[in-house]
Amino acid sequence: METALIILAAGMGTRMNSDLPKVLHEIAGAPMLAHAMRAGAALEPARIVVVTGHGGEAVAATARDWDERAEIAVQAEQLGTGHAVAQAGPLLGSFSGDAYVLYGDTPFISAGTLERMREARAGHDVVILGFEAQDPGRYGRLVMEGAELARIVEFAEASEAEKAITLCNSGVVCADSATLFELIAAVKNDNAKGEYYLTDIVEIARARGLSATAVACDEAETMGINSRAELAAAEAAFQSRARAAALEDGVTLTAPETVHFAFDTVVGRDAIIEPNVVFGPDVTVESGARIRAFSHLEGAHVSRGGVIGPYARLRPGAELAEDVRIGNFVEVKAARIDRGAKVNHLSYIGDAEIGEETNIGAGTITCNYDGVFKHRTRLGARVFIGSNTMLVAPVSVGDDAMTASGSVITEDVEPGALALGRAQQVTKPGRARKLFEILRAKKAQMRDR
Amino acid sequence: METALIILAAGMGTRMNSDLPKVLHEIAGAPMLAHAMRAGAALEPARIVVVTGHGGEAVAATARDWDERAEIAVQAEQLGTGHAVAQAGPLLGSFSGDAYVLYGDTPFISAGTLERMREARAGHDVVILGFEAQDPGRYGRLVMEGAELARIVEFAEASEAEKAITLCNSGVVCADSATLFELIAAVKNDNAKGEYYLTDIVEIARARGLSATAVACDEAETMGINSRAELAAAEAAFQSRARAAALEDGVTLTAPETVHFAFDTVVGRDAIIEPNVVFGPDVTVESGARIRAFSHLEGAHVSRGGVIGPYARLRPGAELAEDVRIGNFVEVKAARIDRGAKVNHLSYIGDAEIGEETNIGAGTITCNYDGVFKHRTRLGARVFIGSNTMLVAPVSVGDDAMTASGSVITEDVEPGALALGRAQQVTKPGRARKLFEILRAKKAQMRDR
Amino acid sequence: METALIILAAGMGTRMNSDLPKVLHEIAGAPMLAHAMRAGAALEPARIVVVTGHGGEAVAATARDWDERAEIAVQAEQLGTGHAVAQAGPLLGSFSGDAYVLYGDTPFISAGTLERMREARAGHDVVILGFEAQDPGRYGRLVMEGAELARIVEFAEASEAEKAITLCNSGVVCADSATLFELIAAVKNDNAKGEYYLTDIVEIARARGLSATAVACDEAETMGINSRAELAAAEAAFQSRARAAALEDGVTLTAPETVHFAFDTVVGRDAIIEPNVVFGPDVTVESGARIRAFSHLEGAHVSRGGVIGPYARLRPGAELAEDVRIGNFVEVKAARIDRGAKVNHLSYIGDAEIGEETNIGAGTITCNYDGVFKHRTRLGARVFIGSNTMLVAPVSVGDDAMTASGSVITEDVEPGALALGRAQQVTKPGRARKLFEILRAKKAQMRDR
Repeated sequence: METALIILAAGMGTRMNSDLPKVLHEIAGAPMLAHAMRAGAALEPARIVVVTGHGGEAVAATARDWDERAEIAVQAEQLGTGHAVAQAGPLLGSFSGDAYVLYGDTPFISAGTLERMREARAGHDVVILGFEAQDPGRYGRLVMEGAELARIVEFAEASEAEKAITLCNSGVVCADSATLFELIAAVKNDNAKGEYYLTDIVEIARARGLSATAVACDEAETMGINSRAELAAAEAAFQSRARAAALEDGVTLTAPETVHFAFDTVVGRDAIIEPNVVFGPDVTVESGARIRAFSHLEGAHVSRGGVIGPYARLRPGAELAEDVRIGNFVEVKAARIDRGAKVNHLSYIGDAEIGEETNIGAGTITCNYDGVFKHRTRLGARVFIGSNTMLVAPVSVGDDAMTASGSVITEDVEPGALALGRAQQVTKPGRARKLFEILRAKKAQMRDR
Repeated sequence: METALIILAAGMGTRMNSDLPKVLHEIAGAPMLAHAMRAGAALEPARIVVVTGHGGEAVAATARDWDERAEIAVQAEQLGTGHAVAQAGPLLGSFSGDAYVLYGDTPFISAGTLERMREARAGHDVVILGFEAQDPGRYGRLVMEGAELARIVEFAEASEAEKAITLCNSGVVCADSATLFELIAAVKNDNAKGEYYLTDIVEIARARGLSATAVACDEAETMGINSRAELAAAEAAFQSRARAAALEDGVTLTAPETVHFAFDTVVGRDAIIEPNVVFGPDVTVESGARIRAFSHLEGAHVSRGGVIGPYARLRPGAELAEDVRIGNFVEVKAARIDRGAKVNHLSYIGDAEIGEETNIGAGTITCNYDGVFKHRTRLGARVFIGSNTMLVAPVSVGDDAMTASGSVITEDVEPGALALGRAQQVTKPGRARKLFEILRAKKAQMRDR
Repeated sequence: METALIILAAGMGTRMNSDLPKVLHEIAGAPMLAHAMRAGAALEPARIVVVTGHGGEAVAATARDWDERAEIAVQAEQLGTGHAVAQAGPLLGSFSGDAYVLYGDTPFISAGTLERMREARAGHDVVILGFEAQDPGRYGRLVMEGAELARIVEFAEASEAEKAITLCNSGVVCADSATLFELIAAVKNDNAKGEYYLTDIVEIARARGLSATAVACDEAETMGINSRAELAAAEAAFQSRARAAALEDGVTLTAPETVHFAFDTVVGRDAIIEPNVVFGPDVTVESGARIRAFSHLEGAHVSRGGVIGPYARLRPGAELAEDVRIGNFVEVKAARIDRGAKVNHLSYIGDAEIGEETNIGAGTITCNYDGVFKHRTRLGARVFIGSNTMLVAPVSVGDDAMTASGSVITEDVEPGALALGRAQQVTKPGRARKLFEILRAKKAQMRDR
């Protein structure tokens, strides 16, 4: 049976104190909304409807960025969760299958939890996701009668006995799509806030002789985010899990609490990550590579035997083959660096290909930008680039060639050739001493005035 | 009514294990003493007397640095807090108004707390600042009789009933200045240590028919610092509050625990601070700017739309207009950088002005120092500085001009001109191959020996 | 009386999920095994036997690296701790003195603890190291009868009364060497796992009329490491103690939790360590030096008055005299830098000597590598190296000499001389404007297509 996701992402998030729509705030390098979409992807949904409101266009664009199939329903006014889901009705009216309601500000629902909801649907018409709360506080309570969910009671209306219940409502719902919209159509807004609550569908379903149940997940999965402090706490929770998982997978983290992973970082067994490393999105580090302290990687691939940093910055498109060495104060962007090549100090390698075993001297720069266009630099294998060589792209240097330190290379260099571009040294005896005398005299004079 | 501050800053701080006077140790980039002075500044004091002792000259200099009106009283011998306050007597003898006694090693008293002391003075002759202690331990206890402070009892002399009191003495005192010195004159040193305790004035005041009361503040405000571990704890407490305040103000901190603020850092709403950022004193970051990971800022201003780092260092006098981009391994000092200019890689920009939309290539250096004097570099708008350009100051480059990569620019460049200063490339076919052969043969020979 | 160490280092460490033998995983920059050897070194052992198994050769090599006297016993099969110790028998058969059994995965036994075991040996034949467990869990319990250790009972076989005992077995043992091997020879493997347990020697000793006792240490000392999470926890424990010790010793750590020490870091009183500093092995920082944020030091010496960083990297062989200043994005390796010299920005100084008060301009590079050999650079005193100078080693610059910015120095420069090696600036009026016009026209054309 096919499934559809309905992701509610219309909230303003007033407590975020931000111009950015709440669901676009990031955790581990991806917007919250993307986390919710990625969670839902475990269900292999045939349809994905994102209900937008505040900041709707930006939210819609992000949704499509992360899944081009995303369809947008607009909730012009914020009249409650039931009303929000109802906006997806016109899009999913004829959809035949189950619909899951997820939340753009609840990023951590696991694939396993959604799978258990799917299983529970076999025996029930409506499945609600609950969680055992450490401190149930003002959450809605799930009142079970055996396997059957009798009703969801709001805290304000709960009896003392109901307040003692610790199984709370996450708001995540699954039901047959047609049934869901029928039930929602029956929800009323005769409450204090005048809103349509999605949770009311349980009572309506039961009144109609349908069956409802609840599935419980870990409270950490249902963590919702309403303020920047909660956003920071969610980030910390993500990082804590990612660090523990990396250790479990056989990665050495010298100081796990100082390593910041992105949502999709992949690090192989027996890789070593030193303190203070930041991973942006789309990084893979192979087994046995070493990422040294103070390194920053985004959109990069580090192969087996690679040693990166300290203070190395790999930007998107950095593709490093085996045993490559990137040293301190080096930036690499959109560059393929072949096996055993070294860029050890103070260099910028952008829009380039570097051959095997090539050694790039300190202070080397690929001059890839002419003020309007970007151009590529191509270096062969076993090339020796002298310190402070400017490679003015487009330019290529053949295998086994060499550039002299301090050269500006504007023309291609053939294999095995030596390219120079520097002035002859001239030494003027006594001249420095004289210059210093003049300057110091001037300084003394200024002081005397 | 005017107020005077008396700040006690004479203590040696033996447990700091330091040659630096205790009150000069820093929290969030400012000496403890400055924190105490800044706290007291909320009272808009007409007079500020700092009582110095150990390391007196350095303490006095720092006090004047932070408020040029600071007057110095010297406590030659350390004979107790009462004795310390008495040293301010000659300076404040004729002062008409209230005096507040603060402590150089108690940096966190809030403006609100001092304001409440001021209000309490309306109805009482002496006001003592107390705090509700989590663990009262060996603190002196404030014995209240209704709104009246009956006495301050030292732990050693407290009855069991008094030990059960959790309202403890912070040592901060407010009274009419003349009254204060009269009371202090009556304090005796007939105790185990032979010291004159400021707190004895309560009992003396009451005996004279004066009225005393206590105002309670949060224990965190009265945190005193006696060791480096306590200094580190105070720093951590400051940072924790600053991070929470920034989140509350609508700043995104990806990993708040890795951001280090200075005492006066100002960051606008919707600014983003990535992990591992250090702020020194005097930094403002406008709304919507982004400070990327591993950046270090002191004395700098970042405007709306600016993106700084990763690995950017802004030093005092870095004034960045809107949409400026400072990239990795770039140092900026005493430089005004206009709207939309970019310094993306491996550069040093010091003592300079950079015009709008100007692009500074990688490896560019403003050669601002001739060994004796510093000179300025001036670049116009829309200039394109080629990679590894040396700008030998004093020098200027006009609007829309360009320098070729690897040039040393020693003379001014007029608008729209292209300046070059580099040798022609010469390529010697086969030469690199031959050089490598010779070097490798030599190495093989050495190995054989 | 002489002592011998027997260090058990044969375990596979399956839970580490690593190809590296467990005892070679590092804490604070040294393999666990080295920590155990350093702990044992407090006994000034005459002999050191390391029992290897999994990854034996690498373990043996590491053991010899850390103490060239290390002797290796191979345990081919892992048949229990008693069996492991027995493998040392052939090497220590004729040794006359006490043997201490330590563990390669238990790195934190203190010198004081071993000393107390030595003292306890005066009155007893066998001494076992125990610890008071917070949560005794499944540890073996030490059953004392007065000062006498009656037996060690495994958790599985413990009575309820014995389970209530909180003094647990660390496995560390001391006995006369000959006695130890005699006792071990009597150990049987008639247990569920079919292993020979070292702890059985207590019962055997007692049965033979020998005396046994236990010495208790802090639980933190006996922390064993079986997974990467435990390794990270051990690292954290080490760092926590090292940070506290530094504070106690009068070092200022602004944010202690962000400073990572190596096992042997030495920092003097009143040195200041800013946030985010990483120490590799073999670093000494003298009193009053300042290590600024984001610095990374290995094998380096920083003298009094030195200021390092931010973003400075000192590599092995960096020897900095008093008042040396190393600034941002600077790498120093195998270089002696004399009093008052400055390398403030974006430089690589490798294989060099730098004289007193010499000033190295931004972007300076010692070109120490010709593709095959490394060469040295020697700069005299009071030299002024202009920005972006390439010092092509081997090369020397005399006292009071100067190089012009952007020069490539290939020949020695005599004292007081000025060396230049750069092309004359040529300025082409209007040329930049024209170039931009051409490039932009091209771009517009491409867009139109």
